[in-house]
Amino acid sequence: MSKTMSIVLASGTIDKIAAAGVITSGAVANGIDVNIFVTFWALMKFRKHDDTVNKLSYDGSEISDFVMKKMAEKHIQGGIEMIRNAKEVGNVHVYGCALMADVMDIKKEDLDPIIEDIIGVGEFVSMTEESYTTIFI
Amino acid sequence: MSKTMSIVLASGTIDKIAAAGVITSGAVANGIDVNIFVTFWALMKFRKHDDTVNKLSYDGSEISDFVMKKMAEKHIQGGIEMIRNAKEVGNVHVYGCALMADVMDIKKEDLDPIIEDIIGVGEFVSMTEESYTTIFI
Amino acid sequence: MSKTMSIVLASGTIDKIAAAGVITSGAVANGIDVNIFVTFWALMKFRKHDDTVNKLSYDGSEISDFVMKKMAEKHIQGGIEMIRNAKEVGNVHVYGCALMADVMDIKKEDLDPIIEDIIGVGEFVSMTEESYTTIFI
Repeated sequence: MSKTMSIVLASGTIDKIAAAGVITSGAVANGIDVNIFVTFWALMKFRKHDDTVNKLSYDGSEISDFVMKKMAEKHIQGGIEMIRNAKEVGNVHVYGCALMADVMDIKKEDLDPIIEDIIGVGEFVSMTEESYTTIFI
Repeated sequence: MSKTMSIVLASGTIDKIAAAGVITSGAVANGIDVNIFVTFWALMKFRKHDDTVNKLSYDGSEISDFVMKKMAEKHIQGGIEMIRNAKEVGNVHVYGCALMADVMDIKKEDLDPIIEDIIGVGEFVSMTEESYTTIFI
Repeated sequence: MSKTMSIVLASGTIDKIAAAGVITSGAVANGIDVNIFVTFWALMKFRKHDDTVNKLSYDGSEISDFVMKKMAEKHIQGGIEMIRNAKEVGNVHVYGCALMADVMDIKKEDLDPIIEDIIGVGEFVSMTEESYTTIFI
């Protein structure tokens, strides 16, 4: 039976969503299943029509343009696309957070179809009980 | 015997403290015990008399006022209150970080009584050994 | 046999690298082995010649100077030095992320010698399978 990793993805910056994508790809490459709970800033970025600013984390805001240029030169995919690709080859499930969806009036049909369902945090926490580790991004 | 989740809460923004509160509530609803180690920016927010700015994460700083308004409309509780409520119905323990308390000259009596004790990181790490997962927020 | 904790260190602010250092020290004090995967903003900070701005997280940017002063008064070490010290007394391994090194044209010789090797995320994820917990900072 394969192991499962759970990821709470709360951050909405390009680099943090990419981190979730890269880790998910690495997990799938090791035959590990992945459950992702998309909430807060990340949930807004998983909307089909997101009109909020795409930016990197505050950590290197002074060199943000330089890093974005490097990422473009190396053709680094967006994090959501990485997760989509990982889902095609592995056992990856992506859920939206019911509380954040309610706060921001986001319906399931407003979200990228990569989001299978909108679930409560209690249901997600019960999934973490069956996971070998859970990370918060 | 019930499982335990450990949380290192280092971030001090409204949304990250709320994330700790929501996850703690979800854990308690599943009969899971929770240990929270409050440090760095979060420890300052757990002071009885905190006079620092309350703000959301940098991720969506351009839409911060809009998100704050939505959270107020939906009567979303503050994260510390969520943890307090979870503590009333479940087995939740909240500790302050001794190193950060020392750096910022914070005494136990300066902190919200939800903080049971000020402990060192070594003691907290030993608690994580008995936990099924540990997350860093 | 000793337990292992895995840490993904993606953040590059002073406080987040210090958090990784403090947790690593606490782990080593408990006889726990630690694997650290240094990526994104953190990898830039582990360069021998890093010329990017050293700053604290956005959370308390209004009181950043005050907190920096307090940390200096209490002689708080930098996070990389804390990890170096922990490595001298415990079983600590530090790896650089191959993808980020490639994006930013960082070679192994550009990095602090505390970085033993540059490895892919798949290899790191396989290490997390043998760890009792993995945290993302």
